[in-house]
Amino acid sequence: MTTPTTRITRLSEKQSTSRDELDKLLESTPLAIVALVRDGHPVIFPTGFARVGDELVIHGSTGSPWMRALSAGASAAVAVTSVDGVVLARSGFESSFRYRSAVIFGVFERVPDADKVEYLEQLTDSFIPGRAAELRASTRKELAATLPLRMPIADDNWSLKISGGWPEDPEEDNAGGAWAGLVPMSVTYGATLASPDLRPGIPLPASVRAMTGDAVSPIARCAGRDRCGSRCASSGSTTICAPSRAAASIALLAVSRFRAISPIDSGIWAQATRVVMSRW
Amino acid sequence: MTTPTTRITRLSEKQSTSRDELDKLLESTPLAIVALVRDGHPVIFPTGFARVGDELVIHGSTGSPWMRALSAGASAAVAVTSVDGVVLARSGFESSFRYRSAVIFGVFERVPDADKVEYLEQLTDSFIPGRAAELRASTRKELAATLPLRMPIADDNWSLKISGGWPEDPEEDNAGGAWAGLVPMSVTYGATLASPDLRPGIPLPASVRAMTGDAVSPIARCAGRDRCGSRCASSGSTTICAPSRAAASIALLAVSRFRAISPIDSGIWAQATRVVMSRW
Repeated sequence: MTTPTTRITRLSEKQSTSRDELDKLLESTPLAIVALVRDGHPVIFPTGFARVGDELVIHGSTGSPWMRALSAGASAAVAVTSVDGVVLARSGFESSFRYRSAVIFGVFERVPDADKVEYLEQLTDSFIPGRAAELRASTRKELAATLPLRMPIADDNWSLKISGGWPEDPEEDNAGGAWAGLVPMSVTYGATLASPDLRPGIPLPASVRAMTGDAVSPIARCAGRDRCGSRCASSGSTTICAPSRAAASIALLAVSRFRAISPIDSGIWAQATRVVMSRW
Repeated sequence: MTTPTTRITRLSEKQSTSRDELDKLLESTPLAIVALVRDGHPVIFPTGFARVGDELVIHGSTGSPWMRALSAGASAAVAVTSVDGVVLARSGFESSFRYRSAVIFGVFERVPDADKVEYLEQLTDSFIPGRAAELRASTRKELAATLPLRMPIADDNWSLKISGGWPEDPEEDNAGGAWAGLVPMSVTYGATLASPDLRPGIPLPASVRAMTGDAVSPIARCAGRDRCGSRCASSGSTTICAPSRAAASIALLAVSRFRAISPIDSGIWAQATRVVMSRW
């Protein structure tokens, strides 16, 4: 059995070898599709995932046959995909989508018991930034029922294909009367709905308000560490200033989440400035 | 080699056997993930798809090695997934997503040459309702380079899992202070962008205005065939009245597309009433 090549054969000019671009895609969606082989047949399932450093992390029930097959060393292929827009060309043939598509090949392994809590909290915080700290600790029974698995993201076990351009029609079509352009697509969070069994008087937590942009207090791009000092938090090219270091850290998580969820939306910073900081 | 079971083992109460629900999911997204086995290893790729009657249709380049493997009869598993919201429970363990997940097992076959044009136009119209009629016909060269494949959607080769509920926390957690509820997620179309090489004076076509809800003229729920006569078009439980039968047909496509794209959004009809009818 040979590990499949990560060299893209069709439209190979769209292959990206940028780990930064890969990480951006992995942070832009909670959804991974995992394929494995069972009895010679391909099987496939969707699951939530998180990137934790150089690992792709999923979890499921210890009773799941497919999770058990993965933890026993079954070869896997994982797809993470974002459809970013419809590209309307002047012919059906040239019409396409803007998309980002990652495929990671490898084998999952069980997260060691000693690290289970940390990995599961990273999963929770990946789906809902700041949520883990708002919740009670997991019980022993819950931990025993949960199987977190991790797959390395190495130098050579992933491919990334990015289609981010415009219609590429031949000259004779450009000269015609057909319209051409882009309809962007993005995933957005809607208005929060309380659970029907929620007891009265329990306020919306900061994590949820941060996700949905429910406004309370402004945050700001950092005016420079000289002026903001320890109230700044940084990640990559983004630095945020908030009334406390803890508040800035949550804001940073939220900002990266907004950016990830809406890669085309130019209003991300406006959303982020409406992020709520409960620890402020 | 045994075809995998379509009986869901984990959270089996979420399994749905409703073909209507399956079709709704298949119409809600253009994205399918296809898995097959190559040299004993699972491989996986994303692709646009359409449901055409009882078939799942994809297309690609005649030069694509994986498309060729599929057309040669490789067993395939196809995943179509919609993440509809984040379910915030009172513990990490009970937190989850609202989702709809379909998996279809089977073998693809080539669409016969005589039907190629029809299938490709169905694909285009699935991605952009009404677009095929706005575009020039495909050339022989384009058709020769394109490989449409179809897989039957039969009675017994698919599974559907729907998680559409609320947090299900144990009593002791319900009695605590943690918030619980739902943050809906949906895919939306953004503001249209013209191609940088678009010649001046070419208006936005009806198909694009219908996708993005750019308003021109109202349509209405049909008041009954008695009153609207041939100006009505129907699909399932939806009947639309418009100034012409052709206009009603386009509106119907657009309405089903809006509903599909935003399963949780209650403003779908409001969007649809803003659909543009160029043939009116």
